[in-house]
Amino acid sequence: MRTRLSTEERRRQLLAIGAELFASRPYEQVWIEEVAEIAQVSRGLLYHYFATKKDFYAAVVRTEADRLLRLTEPDPALPLAEQLAAGLDAYLDYAREHRLGFQLMHNTAIPADEDIRAAHEEAVARQCARLLDALRQRMPVDEATRIAVAGWLRFVATVSLDWLDHPEVDRAQIRDICARALLAAANLPSA
Amino acid sequence: MRTRLSTEERRRQLLAIGAELFASRPYEQVWIEEVAEIAQVSRGLLYHYFATKKDFYAAVVRTEADRLLRLTEPDPALPLAEQLAAGLDAYLDYAREHRLGFQLMHNTAIPADEDIRAAHEEAVARQCARLLDALRQRMPVDEATRIAVAGWLRFVATVSLDWLDHPEVDRAQIRDICARALLAAANLPSA
Repeated sequence: MRTRLSTEERRRQLLAIGAELFASRPYEQVWIEEVAEIAQVSRGLLYHYFATKKDFYAAVVRTEADRLLRLTEPDPALPLAEQLAAGLDAYLDYAREHRLGFQLMHNTAIPADEDIRAAHEEAVARQCARLLDALRQRMPVDEATRIAVAGWLRFVATVSLDWLDHPEVDRAQIRDICARALLAAANLPSA
Repeated sequence: MRTRLSTEERRRQLLAIGAELFASRPYEQVWIEEVAEIAQVSRGLLYHYFATKKDFYAAVVRTEADRLLRLTEPDPALPLAEQLAAGLDAYLDYAREHRLGFQLMHNTAIPADEDIRAAHEEAVARQCARLLDALRQRMPVDEATRIAVAGWLRFVATVSLDWLDHPEVDRAQIRDICARALLAAANLPSA
């Protein structure tokens, strides 16, 4: 019994199945045929949405990155320190609640592929641009600031992945480590 | 005309050639036969030193990591802030002067392989352990501190790789960004 879904719903369903599978196993051990089977669609239909496994994987990464970006959308009405704390709390909640998707987004043990690499880099670039916009309203932003912010995003991802394996550490402690590191690295006047 | 080298010299020569090759091209485009050719040894001899290409690659990563660890050895006679600045200066000099080897050490676009992954992780773990030892003499070190320091090491690597593409940014600026980030992330009393 196949469920009748709109194109957009079907696409989302396939991406959700992909997120589960890629998050639970190495890339090499996921078969696109399996995705079709779980979704109860033909392989032909799956290939209609995503031409190759790499395309599919890149789309899964983009979807998860979009979700995280929406969840951590800052409220410009708040003071910077509060925006930062709220954004980090949302980020860490996402990491804990969507552990597999989060690990997938940072999984670099995938084949060297332009498009997959681009999907990973776009996600970081968008977070970086948003942060730099917020900083620009408070201080001059030069190339060194951009380097500091881009590095900090990697810091936050690394710290969060590590924290997932050490849940005994308080979320607030991790959040404060990250917040302090950004203020110091970017040399914010309020730090 | 083959040069007669001792086992240890030969091993070092092969690793140096490997560092050059792996640093200048994707892993997939390096052929172990080429290494033998450049070194003017038989493939058999090469395989005697390194059984597989993966083994060889992991050994190259370990060699570069050792070198960087020696170069950034801190002088415990100095105050912490100076040890940190000196270590970061040495690290950034290494990154600039051994650009290819440095990029190679942080290249994650390699096949999913236990031993290669382990070589990368060992390098970070050793730097992390050394830093935590230094901190332990000044403050209590808990799991959150360890997470902060491990994340900071990734931060420094990310910032350094980024800086290599933006040499117009002053080394001292990058060093200070990194030093401030560690003091803040680890919440050091002197920060």
